[in-house]
Amino acid sequence: MHNFEYYTPTRIIFGRNTENAVADLIKRYGGKRVLLHYGQGSAVRSGLIARVKKNLDEAGIFHVELGGVVPNPHLDKVRTGFALGNLNQVDFVLAVGGGSVIDSAKAIAFALAEPNENVWDLFERKRPPKASLPVGSILTIAAAGSEMSRNVVITNEETKKKRSFGDALARPKFAIMNPELTMTLPDYQTAAGCVDIMMHTMERYFTSGGNMEITDAIAEGLLRTVMRNANILRLSPKNYNARAEIMWASSLAHNGLTGCGNDGGDFSTHNLEYELSGMFNVTHGAGLAALWGSWARYVYNVCLPRFVQFAVNVMGVDATGISDEEVALRGIEDLEDFYRKIGMPTRISALGINLTDEQIKEMAESCEKATGGSIGSAKRIYFDDMVKIYEMAR
Amino acid sequence: MHNFEYYTPTRIIFGRNTENAVADLIKRYGGKRVLLHYGQGSAVRSGLIARVKKNLDEAGIFHVELGGVVPNPHLDKVRTGFALGNLNQVDFVLAVGGGSVIDSAKAIAFALAEPNENVWDLFERKRPPKASLPVGSILTIAAAGSEMSRNVVITNEETKKKRSFGDALARPKFAIMNPELTMTLPDYQTAAGCVDIMMHTMERYFTSGGNMEITDAIAEGLLRTVMRNANILRLSPKNYNARAEIMWASSLAHNGLTGCGNDGGDFSTHNLEYELSGMFNVTHGAGLAALWGSWARYVYNVCLPRFVQFAVNVMGVDATGISDEEVALRGIEDLEDFYRKIGMPTRISALGINLTDEQIKEMAESCEKATGGSIGSAKRIYFDDMVKIYEMAR
Repeated sequence: MHNFEYYTPTRIIFGRNTENAVADLIKRYGGKRVLLHYGQGSAVRSGLIARVKKNLDEAGIFHVELGGVVPNPHLDKVRTGFALGNLNQVDFVLAVGGGSVIDSAKAIAFALAEPNENVWDLFERKRPPKASLPVGSILTIAAAGSEMSRNVVITNEETKKKRSFGDALARPKFAIMNPELTMTLPDYQTAAGCVDIMMHTMERYFTSGGNMEITDAIAEGLLRTVMRNANILRLSPKNYNARAEIMWASSLAHNGLTGCGNDGGDFSTHNLEYELSGMFNVTHGAGLAALWGSWARYVYNVCLPRFVQFAVNVMGVDATGISDEEVALRGIEDLEDFYRKIGMPTRISALGINLTDEQIKEMAESCEKATGGSIGSAKRIYFDDMVKIYEMAR
Repeated sequence: MHNFEYYTPTRIIFGRNTENAVADLIKRYGGKRVLLHYGQGSAVRSGLIARVKKNLDEAGIFHVELGGVVPNPHLDKVRTGFALGNLNQVDFVLAVGGGSVIDSAKAIAFALAEPNENVWDLFERKRPPKASLPVGSILTIAAAGSEMSRNVVITNEETKKKRSFGDALARPKFAIMNPELTMTLPDYQTAAGCVDIMMHTMERYFTSGGNMEITDAIAEGLLRTVMRNANILRLSPKNYNARAEIMWASSLAHNGLTGCGNDGGDFSTHNLEYELSGMFNVTHGAGLAALWGSWARYVYNVCLPRFVQFAVNVMGVDATGISDEEVALRGIEDLEDFYRKIGMPTRISALGINLTDEQIKEMAESCEKATGGSIGSAKRIYFDDMVKIYEMAR
């Protein structure tokens, strides 16, 4: 068991109609001039943005808006948001959307707090942030967990590099979470979100040492809950309770709770996926599903007890009379079966991408550079390992 | 499932030697003049207080000290702490101890922030608090969860009334949690702490409606973890990992996590116990153990599905071929067996108290008054119910 710090100051307002509290919450955190940031239009079409603007207007809160954030959000949009916010002297950034919008909002908030610095330096880890404007969110996609997390992920579309960093300053002040707002999400996005939630938990679960029973119990319960409710949503996408379970799981999976006492987690699959979605702009959760099984088969034998525990406690594998190795492999297979059942790929080819050897080499080189040479806790992986995992997942 | 707010801003620094970070943490939260608050001497005898003072001195942080906080902490001590803090213009209250010391520190911090008000008014719910000084803690007893909670409990020793209130302002800024600091605790206190942790979870678990699967999974995992590790500590009180599991459980059980989506929880057992420890000064956890089984048998049939789920998922009752009622009752019996096994009472008489009818009436009247007439979610209980539960537990 390792020492740990746990710090989750984000105030969560969860449930039906909670978006009506947005102006009060912004005021509570001192916001008077708001940059309202959102995605490609679904929040506009649903009427949510209009309701939010009305709520802000009625409270006398000034706002300017910037929509159009895309999945794997672009540095370019961050620069635009910075310019707009700077011009209008905003003091609060409100994200209405999913993880991409929240990440874009976080990056804009960092840029605005240090206007004379280049915000991309944070993602290249050339300097730590010194300050951020306050950020709040109205969540419309349960997936990334950015609403409570210390992480930010942005893609530099010129260089095709997707880069992340983490800092306590990146934790939003509040998150408004109304499960009803996720009901119109396409099935594919819902399923990709479930994969992302599960992977945030599993990245922290698969470590070669230093675990806590209570953290394991929380992680295993969370994973079972997500799988059960993902199955419900396949048939009943408007089931409120199932949407709520998955929405709350998205925050708990990535706010630090599922990593307490662990050694920081593995995160190899995440880093391998960043290259994939940086190069091919795939949906993050789908990219994770396409890679995980190959990563798992590549590393499981050096982290066997954890894979056995996962198979039994999460996937419900009956371990009677079979070897630990077989139990572990069945757990991996069963999770891949689940992924396919909810419409997720378990190979890169299923994403419509036929990777060349040259592309694999390029991704592995980029991943090696981004991770400082190696990554992983279940098993430390280096350039050659990255190549092999991409090849297995092809 | 109910709407909920989740807000746990307390920064947790968990693990070996973490107490060395105390001066840095106090500075981070703006503390320059500290009231150092502690209990009846064990933290002095162990050398912890001396180390803390050295740490503060080396950082140039002014401090005055006030020890002698007793279990079921007294209003009188709060008044003394207020006078001392006011005289020395302290701007931060540091608690070194368990829940009693932290609660006393919280009450002093409220008193200092509104020096012209009577702090007891907060406990009698005559006014809400407007402000508090920042509070931090170095935890030495895993039990009350006050290190992350929004609650404060103080006993007015003149009137023998133990009263509580909750407010977001009561959440401490940080908690330093080194499991080693709990290793010298007497077995009885360790066991009573485990009961308190379990009861904070169970009070939120037993509700007549509005539950979340993910909250249940976390609660059930937490309860199993505490029981398993309480058994380990009976034989190996210095087992670091077991101490750590229970210590982290103490915070998670009472920071709000185990109640998300529920209807606020039951808390009948807690309120019945406040009268018992107000009148007889019993250890809170032991008082809870003495009352719970009687409460459970009195209410289980109106909340049967939850008691069945508890029996199966937490106590491991095999439900094959027996009625739900029988499953529920076995779960209750098994938990009482566990309590007795770790040296906890399951009757009030086992606390050395022979309750008279008059005392029962007095406690029920006081409980009725303190709860505004009734309490409970699994089953709403009133004066007559309170009398019956005390009689059953006698």
